[in-house]
Amino acid sequence: MNQTATLPSPSLPGDNRLEKIRIVLSHTSHPGNIGAVARAMKTMGLSRLTLVNPKCFPDDEAMRRAVGADDILQRATVCRSLDAALADTVIAFAVSARHRNLGPAPRSAREAAPEVLALTGSGEVALVFGNETAGLSNAEVQRCQRTVFIPANPDYTSLNLASAVQLICYELRMTAFDGSPPVFTKVIPFASQRATNDEVERFHAHLERVMIAAGFLVPQQPKRLMPKLRRLFARAELERDEINILRGILDAVEKRMGH
Amino acid sequence: MNQTATLPSPSLPGDNRLEKIRIVLSHTSHPGNIGAVARAMKTMGLSRLTLVNPKCFPDDEAMRRAVGADDILQRATVCRSLDAALADTVIAFAVSARHRNLGPAPRSAREAAPEVLALTGSGEVALVFGNETAGLSNAEVQRCQRTVFIPANPDYTSLNLASAVQLICYELRMTAFDGSPPVFTKVIPFASQRATNDEVERFHAHLERVMIAAGFLVPQQPKRLMPKLRRLFARAELERDEINILRGILDAVEKRMGH
Repeated sequence: MNQTATLPSPSLPGDNRLEKIRIVLSHTSHPGNIGAVARAMKTMGLSRLTLVNPKCFPDDEAMRRAVGADDILQRATVCRSLDAALADTVIAFAVSARHRNLGPAPRSAREAAPEVLALTGSGEVALVFGNETAGLSNAEVQRCQRTVFIPANPDYTSLNLASAVQLICYELRMTAFDGSPPVFTKVIPFASQRATNDEVERFHAHLERVMIAAGFLVPQQPKRLMPKLRRLFARAELERDEINILRGILDAVEKRMGH
Repeated sequence: MNQTATLPSPSLPGDNRLEKIRIVLSHTSHPGNIGAVARAMKTMGLSRLTLVNPKCFPDDEAMRRAVGADDILQRATVCRSLDAALADTVIAFAVSARHRNLGPAPRSAREAAPEVLALTGSGEVALVFGNETAGLSNAEVQRCQRTVFIPANPDYTSLNLASAVQLICYELRMTAFDGSPPVFTKVIPFASQRATNDEVERFHAHLERVMIAAGFLVPQQPKRLMPKLRRLFARAELERDEINILRGILDAVEKRMGH
């Protein structure tokens, strides 16, 4: 039950590589989706957003959907062309549900993530997402050096734009941290310390005494009762407060029984 | 360049285990989120949706946001309590960003996915998501036997409800298919077959002849020109149509040069 031992330390390292990844949205129709993308990026530790000819931006609906990620919208770059959006990047990955014969074989997000992260060592890396309805054009895909896909249900590949960004950014985060990103340890702290062995032993003695007084444990025929109870409480890894509660119950029972 | 060889076969097996996973949304405030959840589920091959006391359902906005996943909304079950929503399940996993000391140590989505899928062998398995603002209550988390979290950015864990469902369902799908789910092979077919060795050799010979005729390649001083060009075209894995285009160019050039 002692969960704190299994949770990461409170130090929360980021990953600089994630900050060198540029999310490029081409010809986005719905400003709400731009806000949802900003939120998706921030939950995974990405921050660079570039928009190619968005239909409406800046926009109130985008800000509303971004919730606490409006800083990403405020720093977003708006470009007139994909070429401008890819300026100063070392490589661009097109994210596409369709497998088009336009370049190297498309790879799944999980397969591509290590290369994306490795290339940030050379400069900014772009991930390019198309319009909500039409996706990326062939010309846009050809402007990129790689193609990435999300292995969705073949019968229904209709991922929402922000969902696609969410999944790609998630894979990048998972890969950046070798599958175990640091966790926000909003742990409700233990109300009490773990009990010492002495405290546990005194509890066992108290319990045994009460069971005998109650006539439940007959010392001449103990029936392995104590070993079984010890096993149970060992598994529970009792805390000090819990021992106090249990002994409080035992005390109350003892009094009622006339000790 | 031959991508078809690297893509999965057109047979598209589902995974019955994904169909035995029940997504439970507790006290959802925004009907649009219910629709977005249905869409997220369907993209990953899940279909069972149960709603506990949704604020508005059925609802037009939910249907609108579900896009092609309205079948999931139509088959969704609405319950008055979490207990009712968990009826007939063998185990329930609470999805929570907060680490609460309420049971077994929380595990990340990727860590938990194999157990979720394994338990579908015994019956339906529930994944429970809380209200958009408040998340799951402690009482709701305690009603579940496991806790799962998404390892989001510790500085900003504010995942949208549908995004959280999307990521969990994605991990389940990836795990169900050992990291390589079947892909929808909407491949634009090759316009032409890959060229044979003979065709490639005839092209090289033609190219060499034209370079000599043009005075660019001097047979007495070949300067490794042909090996370098061979290396380039070997990498390209030429198709028959491409060879025809290249030889067409060479033919035209030869004619102009007066052969």
